[in-house]
Amino acid sequence: MIPYKLIAKKRDGGELTAAEINELIAAYLTGDFSDSQMAAFLMAAFLRGLSTSETAALTRAMTASGEVWDLSAIPGPKIDKHSTGGVGDKVSLVLAPWISACGVVVPMMSGRGLGHTGGTLDKLAAIPGFSTSLTKKRALSILKKTGVAMLAATPGVAPADRRMYALRDATGTVESIPLITASILSKKLAEGADGYVFDVKYGSGAFMPELPQAKKLAESLVNTAQAAGKKAVAVITAMDQPTGHAAGNACEVREAIDCLRTREPQDLFLITRPLAVEMLVLSGLVRSREKAVDRLEQTIDDGSAVDKLRALIKAQGGDPRVVDNPDLLPQAPYRHDVIAPKSGYIQRIDTRRSGWALVELGVGRKKVEDDVDLSAGLILEKKIGDRVKKGERIGEIMGQKRETFPLVADEITASLTIGSKKTTPLKLIHSRYDGRRWSVCH
Amino acid sequence: MIPYKLIAKKRDGGELTAAEINELIAAYLTGDFSDSQMAAFLMAAFLRGLSTSETAALTRAMTASGEVWDLSAIPGPKIDKHSTGGVGDKVSLVLAPWISACGVVVPMMSGRGLGHTGGTLDKLAAIPGFSTSLTKKRALSILKKTGVAMLAATPGVAPADRRMYALRDATGTVESIPLITASILSKKLAEGADGYVFDVKYGSGAFMPELPQAKKLAESLVNTAQAAGKKAVAVITAMDQPTGHAAGNACEVREAIDCLRTREPQDLFLITRPLAVEMLVLSGLVRSREKAVDRLEQTIDDGSAVDKLRALIKAQGGDPRVVDNPDLLPQAPYRHDVIAPKSGYIQRIDTRRSGWALVELGVGRKKVEDDVDLSAGLILEKKIGDRVKKGERIGEIMGQKRETFPLVADEITASLTIGSKKTTPLKLIHSRYDGRRWSVCH
Repeated sequence: MIPYKLIAKKRDGGELTAAEINELIAAYLTGDFSDSQMAAFLMAAFLRGLSTSETAALTRAMTASGEVWDLSAIPGPKIDKHSTGGVGDKVSLVLAPWISACGVVVPMMSGRGLGHTGGTLDKLAAIPGFSTSLTKKRALSILKKTGVAMLAATPGVAPADRRMYALRDATGTVESIPLITASILSKKLAEGADGYVFDVKYGSGAFMPELPQAKKLAESLVNTAQAAGKKAVAVITAMDQPTGHAAGNACEVREAIDCLRTREPQDLFLITRPLAVEMLVLSGLVRSREKAVDRLEQTIDDGSAVDKLRALIKAQGGDPRVVDNPDLLPQAPYRHDVIAPKSGYIQRIDTRRSGWALVELGVGRKKVEDDVDLSAGLILEKKIGDRVKKGERIGEIMGQKRETFPLVADEITASLTIGSKKTTPLKLIHSRYDGRRWSVCH
Repeated sequence: MIPYKLIAKKRDGGELTAAEINELIAAYLTGDFSDSQMAAFLMAAFLRGLSTSETAALTRAMTASGEVWDLSAIPGPKIDKHSTGGVGDKVSLVLAPWISACGVVVPMMSGRGLGHTGGTLDKLAAIPGFSTSLTKKRALSILKKTGVAMLAATPGVAPADRRMYALRDATGTVESIPLITASILSKKLAEGADGYVFDVKYGSGAFMPELPQAKKLAESLVNTAQAAGKKAVAVITAMDQPTGHAAGNACEVREAIDCLRTREPQDLFLITRPLAVEMLVLSGLVRSREKAVDRLEQTIDDGSAVDKLRALIKAQGGDPRVVDNPDLLPQAPYRHDVIAPKSGYIQRIDTRRSGWALVELGVGRKKVEDDVDLSAGLILEKKIGDRVKKGERIGEIMGQKRETFPLVADEITASLTIGSKKTTPLKLIHSRYDGRRWSVCH
């Protein structure tokens, strides 16, 4: 392979073969294709695009750069979910034990939070003793015994992605749908699951706020996963306001536990259940969506969903008593009311802005090396369409960094648009894509 | 400056300000803008293009990365020529002493040959004792005394270009007109001349074989040089066959000396004279093109052009006797006839192919570290439109590497298209561009 010829082929709009992409990634790992050459290739791919087969080949090659789990010794279908993330997005905490209670094996590798969105690993870290840094051996043993594991990507997973992501971050090549797809999927495919459900968010707090872009990303994820031989479905869900009321680490764990018992908060439940239905249908364990709903409802009614959460926490070294006594979660030493600045309906929330305010509070990270405050968070009692009165308490922020409270509270209220006309929020479940067609959800 | 923001601005088709480009190059030199970031920027610039003002700012910043000569202490107008290069292109060897004999100071920095085209420095190296590795101090002293110096770019010139060129070579970002322009001009502007004439070749042996591309490059060079405050004109000249008969190092020096005395070979003379006219007019030393021609012819008639060549060779440590006794130039130990493979007219020459054949002979380099054979070369006695007979000797190749002769001779004959219909070569001087308009040359 002559490296610059592959770069020039993409630069001129050509389509690389799978063999060429394999060579390119192999040479990148040995150093024969330098970081500078990769940076030029990534910019060419950013501007010229990658076809589905190129994206699939790139994904496979990136996955093959590291360890790939073989789950064949574990009985049962293996399905995972990936979310593009948002503020208050604790769906994974509800979904993983719930779907596992239905018999689906869930090998879920997640990331830590960075920027305005939280990360599942940070939320799990709020559970005393819970470890997400599992070796492959321990993770496979937990999966076999418990049917669910929630962990950080092991260091051996997709090393090519780690280097390429750092490079993209430095060279202005992050916001490319094929490159985002390859980065997400290269890690997900290493889990060795049979199928994947993609929760692609749209709205003011989403990575892709605009619906057309979110749909493009959803199509790219599903088409590429299917081209790589996996079952896949994507669902477009709302992120025009924080999901549920809680946005933080400990406070989101508490809300997720509630939801597995009480089906509240409603928006969290109504986003999570359809995703669970998709996973259950993909798994082949049920024959219809109706049967999937029945099975899911039953595991809440009979407590097996919450039992599975206890088992998961225990298996990963955490204190399972938090499930019945959430006061064992980290408690914030300080609290501060959030007050409505005027009267009217909450018409709109700049959710990204409120997410960045929470980063200031210590909920998330600006840089990967930042520490987070597990007790910090926001409880926003009002949602879009709710009426508020000037001076009324509409929520609270909490945590250790009380010096940030006035500014953070101001930013939270500034992220709300309050007006005289009542508006409705985005549809929680907008549509789904199965690789052949889009269908609107009702 | 946040590096990736500048990359993203160009990536999205924005126009960078001069201040942004200055920051980018300054950060590149300190290492705050990495090679990978530069590679991504160069690919974005390749695909999105650079405006004339961006190209001018980039050129200025690259020039300012190194030493810039101040020629103000040397009396007289300073004008240089740059050629995009070709096979048998010994124009500089004729032009520099000739125009200097007319009173124009010529501070000519040149390159070594790489690929299918020769380099002026290699040709000059064939003159016994001639040194092109001059310090700035010595070069300025020669320029002051002799009015002309022909040398390699000093190591302090445009270090940003040296790094960027190596990066472009590795990352598939060479063939971009704005980037080529900035690379050429950043070194040329460091000479500190008042004006530049660009000899942009077209035809089968040129860097840009197609006329439209050659014209684009000519416009870019002139517009950018003018935007950087220099006088500039470009002339499009023919490179559909080797210029003159000789293509090599010693043999081209011999032909250039002949031309300064006898005005032969005709095509070399008819390409060089109009370029000399442009330089003389740009210099302001003459009031019209007619006067320029008169002055130039006079320096050949009275021998002052050839005298200036002797003075130049002497000033740079060479043996000036070669001017009167070219047999003092390196002699090839072996010679081999080139035989016409069929009868008919020479209709076309694949000049690039014949140039690559000469590289095999040792005339040029495949890699920068290769040695050249100064005695090696081709004398092609026939030109496009000439009639040849099968078996007739149409030229010869010579040099030290006799083992390459059969293959090189075959490649030379294979580069000729011989047919029954007589064709005419490209116009030697196609057109000129002065920054405002194109005019066709008659």
